[in-house]
Amino acid sequence: MDAKKLEKITIALDAMGGDHAPDEIVKGALLSLKENDFNIILVGQEEKINNLLSIQKYDEQRVSVAKATQRIEQDEHPAIAVKRKKDSSINICSKLVKDGLAGGMISAGSTGAVMTSAILNIGRIKGVKRPALAAFIPTIRDPVLLIDIGANVDCKPNYLLQFAIMGKILYENLLPEIKPKIGLLSIGEERTKGNHLVQESHNLISKSIKNFVGNVESHQILSGKTNVIVCDGFVGNTVIKSMEGTAEMLFHQLKDMFLHNTVSKIGAYLLKSALKNLKKKFDYREYGGLQLLGINGICIKAHGRSKSKAIKSSVKVAIDTINSKTTTRIGSEISKYLE
Amino acid sequence: MDAKKLEKITIALDAMGGDHAPDEIVKGALLSLKENDFNIILVGQEEKINNLLSIQKYDEQRVSVAKATQRIEQDEHPAIAVKRKKDSSINICSKLVKDGLAGGMISAGSTGAVMTSAILNIGRIKGVKRPALAAFIPTIRDPVLLIDIGANVDCKPNYLLQFAIMGKILYENLLPEIKPKIGLLSIGEERTKGNHLVQESHNLISKSIKNFVGNVESHQILSGKTNVIVCDGFVGNTVIKSMEGTAEMLFHQLKDMFLHNTVSKIGAYLLKSALKNLKKKFDYREYGGLQLLGINGICIKAHGRSKSKAIKSSVKVAIDTINSKTTTRIGSEISKYLE
Repeated sequence: MDAKKLEKITIALDAMGGDHAPDEIVKGALLSLKENDFNIILVGQEEKINNLLSIQKYDEQRVSVAKATQRIEQDEHPAIAVKRKKDSSINICSKLVKDGLAGGMISAGSTGAVMTSAILNIGRIKGVKRPALAAFIPTIRDPVLLIDIGANVDCKPNYLLQFAIMGKILYENLLPEIKPKIGLLSIGEERTKGNHLVQESHNLISKSIKNFVGNVESHQILSGKTNVIVCDGFVGNTVIKSMEGTAEMLFHQLKDMFLHNTVSKIGAYLLKSALKNLKKKFDYREYGGLQLLGINGICIKAHGRSKSKAIKSSVKVAIDTINSKTTTRIGSEISKYLE
Repeated sequence: MDAKKLEKITIALDAMGGDHAPDEIVKGALLSLKENDFNIILVGQEEKINNLLSIQKYDEQRVSVAKATQRIEQDEHPAIAVKRKKDSSINICSKLVKDGLAGGMISAGSTGAVMTSAILNIGRIKGVKRPALAAFIPTIRDPVLLIDIGANVDCKPNYLLQFAIMGKILYENLLPEIKPKIGLLSIGEERTKGNHLVQESHNLISKSIKNFVGNVESHQILSGKTNVIVCDGFVGNTVIKSMEGTAEMLFHQLKDMFLHNTVSKIGAYLLKSALKNLKKKFDYREYGGLQLLGINGICIKAHGRSKSKAIKSSVKVAIDTINSKTTTRIGSEISKYLE
């Protein structure tokens, strides 16, 4: 590969990850070059990537290709695959970040493999106990950042405190116009509600974090009143998937009912654009993907179904996160709470 | 009060619980008398109840009133209120079941107070470690029974095994035409996925329960492919509330968009009945409420917003549950697994 340590922000993009790789990934990379000032390293099968590049017009100074002979599949065991497939595109991405040749990595591949590879190769920020996966969720007001949504299934109160700190920093950095309110996901608003983990975490977070608004129940997430909502990774994953499942099922049912008879078909036709807007409003793919916080660099897991536009928004989020010095700020904030 | 030990099924109904008490509760009771062969004890402020009864026509032989001078409010601490307000309508209901004067109780009052009162007064079935709260959730296929949805926030694997046993029995008894598939809520389909509790519970349940289909992810709940889904009460409560929140928010947004302009208003008008049907399809209030399983009698927590129709369906579910000898069956199945 010919990537050099550059002054400009450089992103390592896994060209082989996701359902539409490599075509849509490469397309997305070139789209984002037009809108943002950065360099990109496309990681994967050289020949395929070069073929795709050869039919496009772009600034060749800003694009390089890093060879990866292997690809980790969705159905592989993440930890085993990351260790066995040393030369997989995900591993090459995380090594580029580790070696300082890229400031961040993006992959639409297996979430588990991306996390494992990033944690193993890039490593944690000093003082961070557990890196956590954070997701922006669109709401009727400002987006909500839910953290952790699956990196840590068994947590301790001080992990949740760190999730709160990291989530708050990311939110402030990406949405500087909002002063985020921090909440703890529970099953009742009073501080005595919830399981042991949540009750103890409540005490810890309330002592340490300004703007902590206390417990938030899951039906309040989409109200958008609380900006950063903290939970363990098992609960976060369950919540985000149940919201997705409910929305998908309702849209599916709506579609069925709209096709029911001629009257409903006409009604649906008249509502077409409104419905499309609604669906788009709650499409979390608009938000660039998931962020793995707490590692020594930026790592974004784009949605597996990402097409070029989603990749472009992941790149934008990666650049904004690097520019706002999220990693450095997490390091300095976390160190304040170290015993 | 003049309730007698009767051969006929008798239900103790808390006339003072819920947003529309006592009017809609009494109305619902009288509606259900027309459709089911049972006796009812209305529990609460005698004068109010008698006033409501006096303006209705009904079979006086089948209705009695049990006096309760107190009422537990939604915002009271459940355990404290149950202990302090000895003469609350909820406590009188559970005592009627305890004394064998009623086979089951129904309340639309505070969930925590109903559970606490039932567990304290009626007591557990021998061998049951923790009573659990079960909810039927409508899906596009058969309904799903989610258990536990909030009675136990910190669980052990053998609690979850018991939830599976109790949920399976309730499902089989209320929907005898379906052979229920039992699943465990987790964040991945493989048995190695999930937190410690879920992984250990998976091993235990898979050894003990026929028709155990393994892990189910939360976005699959509404597919209706798995009939009984087991989880700890913190996760169950979070999941059910996030599904409710998502559905409510989407319907709210739909309404907003429909009112956007004249074209969308006409479209919405043409779809009115289809939308109403859809909303009704996913209205969990149609299913009679939550069941507290594992106590020595039937205890149903009707929705706080219950009107007469919802109360009528709670009564129907209570009668069916009593008729199918759910309590006896839970006792005998649980005893098979006792060490």
